[in-house]
Amino acid sequence: MSVITLGTMAFDAIETPFGKIDKIVGGSATYVAYAATHLVQPVQQISIVGSDFPEEEMAELKKRGVQLEGVQIIPDQKSFFWSGKYHLDMNTRDTLITDLNVLADFNPIVPDSYQNSEFLMLGNLMPRLQISVIKQLNKRPKLIVLDTMNFWMETALVDLETVLGLIDVLLINDSEARLLSGEFSLVKAAKKILQMGPKYLIIKKGEHGALLFHLDHVFFAPALPLEDVFDPTGAGDTFAGGFIGHLARTKDLSFENMKTAIIVGSALASFCVEKFGPQRLKEITKADIDIRLREFVQLVNFDIDLV
Amino acid sequence: MSVITLGTMAFDAIETPFGKIDKIVGGSATYVAYAATHLVQPVQQISIVGSDFPEEEMAELKKRGVQLEGVQIIPDQKSFFWSGKYHLDMNTRDTLITDLNVLADFNPIVPDSYQNSEFLMLGNLMPRLQISVIKQLNKRPKLIVLDTMNFWMETALVDLETVLGLIDVLLINDSEARLLSGEFSLVKAAKKILQMGPKYLIIKKGEHGALLFHLDHVFFAPALPLEDVFDPTGAGDTFAGGFIGHLARTKDLSFENMKTAIIVGSALASFCVEKFGPQRLKEITKADIDIRLREFVQLVNFDIDLV
Repeated sequence: MSVITLGTMAFDAIETPFGKIDKIVGGSATYVAYAATHLVQPVQQISIVGSDFPEEEMAELKKRGVQLEGVQIIPDQKSFFWSGKYHLDMNTRDTLITDLNVLADFNPIVPDSYQNSEFLMLGNLMPRLQISVIKQLNKRPKLIVLDTMNFWMETALVDLETVLGLIDVLLINDSEARLLSGEFSLVKAAKKILQMGPKYLIIKKGEHGALLFHLDHVFFAPALPLEDVFDPTGAGDTFAGGFIGHLARTKDLSFENMKTAIIVGSALASFCVEKFGPQRLKEITKADIDIRLREFVQLVNFDIDLV
Repeated sequence: MSVITLGTMAFDAIETPFGKIDKIVGGSATYVAYAATHLVQPVQQISIVGSDFPEEEMAELKKRGVQLEGVQIIPDQKSFFWSGKYHLDMNTRDTLITDLNVLADFNPIVPDSYQNSEFLMLGNLMPRLQISVIKQLNKRPKLIVLDTMNFWMETALVDLETVLGLIDVLLINDSEARLLSGEFSLVKAAKKILQMGPKYLIIKKGEHGALLFHLDHVFFAPALPLEDVFDPTGAGDTFAGGFIGHLARTKDLSFENMKTAIIVGSALASFCVEKFGPQRLKEITKADIDIRLREFVQLVNFDIDLV
């Protein structure tokens, strides 16, 4: 079973209370790919880079089952660059630099070899590009997952509303859910957002876990309490990759299995934050992931006897 | 099985984004009693009030199995008064007024009829009064639970450190855990605090749930996602009352049962915030509590298949 991923492949410069790095490979599609390939292969990447993107990174991705036919390499141009600085709580950050570079003229093209994929992960990107990819597919995938952010709510709301009508699962964080709905209560926000198109809404709360809403159902997944969060960059994309990777692997789109998929996504995200960039996602094995999944079971498992 | 509770019985004035109330019965021991008596009776109260404290409230507490021999009523004086205003997020508040009144000269006395109780809930109060109550008991209770706050960490740290050496379970919120330990990471904070005396540490995170730490074990309990949090006053005390009430009812002090006790405390706290003051705790039945406990099971229950 394959997963198509649309998103950025980029360079990041990151400053956290624990350290600083000037230039490291990042981008939403990069993190999704490194996470999802632990669960399912191939991951069919749609992205754009400049000639500065490292060939070794492309080789590493290929080795892990990432197909790169949909990645445009633009000669003599630079890859997308993002620079940010995290606050002490690691849940908030300031963007210092956003150099679109090749992303400014990105026109994603779905290669023929990607047609008939049943799972589509639309990473955080301009909503009109997300729409374009959906429209290029001959057959609607079984599941379309969308990640987006406050920036598009503020600058491209009409396009965003269109894409919300075309997808199944929306991933946003708590402040974005409040912004999109105009409601402070996340329960009320979820009700409104589920009326905008998505059948499932996942609200990510960083170190406070994630909530899944569907019809009248709600599920809460904790984040693993960690001694240190070293670098949260890419944690949301990694979560998304683990989430859709699990669903594509099991081909089970029930609410019960969505819950499990969120735990798998949370487990992968808990590795991502341990080092700068996607490094930890390259190091971990299936055994490491299984150990962490068992920690999640321990973390929330309880017996109840009624009063 | 009985539970001794030390704490305030008071009047509160509360302002939230949803409403305002000038004078309502409150106080840590009041909330603990209304919560715990749903699970276990009698609750043996130790507190102090002025002649202004309503007789109907005393009668209501008695009716619910609260013993009041340990409550001193001071003629011609006023009960403790607290006034606060909540911010929009309901997790933070400003204290506007603190009139100690009768609390200024409070010297708690444990009645003979309370001796041999096996469970002691030390509600938020001056640490030297918490120590005094422990010392007055002929036999150490099986379980001593302590609630405290940042104010005592800042003004009575030596007394607080003494009482930490005498108790079993400490309840504090996340910012208090950071203040007490000097660590930002809650996992690191918990390790340090568990070395100060308590065998169990519960870190409350308001709408983000609660964490239980014991040795190398950690358990996470979510808060129920609510449409509206109307008034969070007393939610922490209600949680404490439900927690110790469940443990006293079941007489099982295992880590597994502590987990269940946290869920019971969370369920009761989720009622408390629905109306001003302890009103909802007076209205609910065992059936209501059971329904909510089942909602908690639904909220966090998941199946895991390993990768």
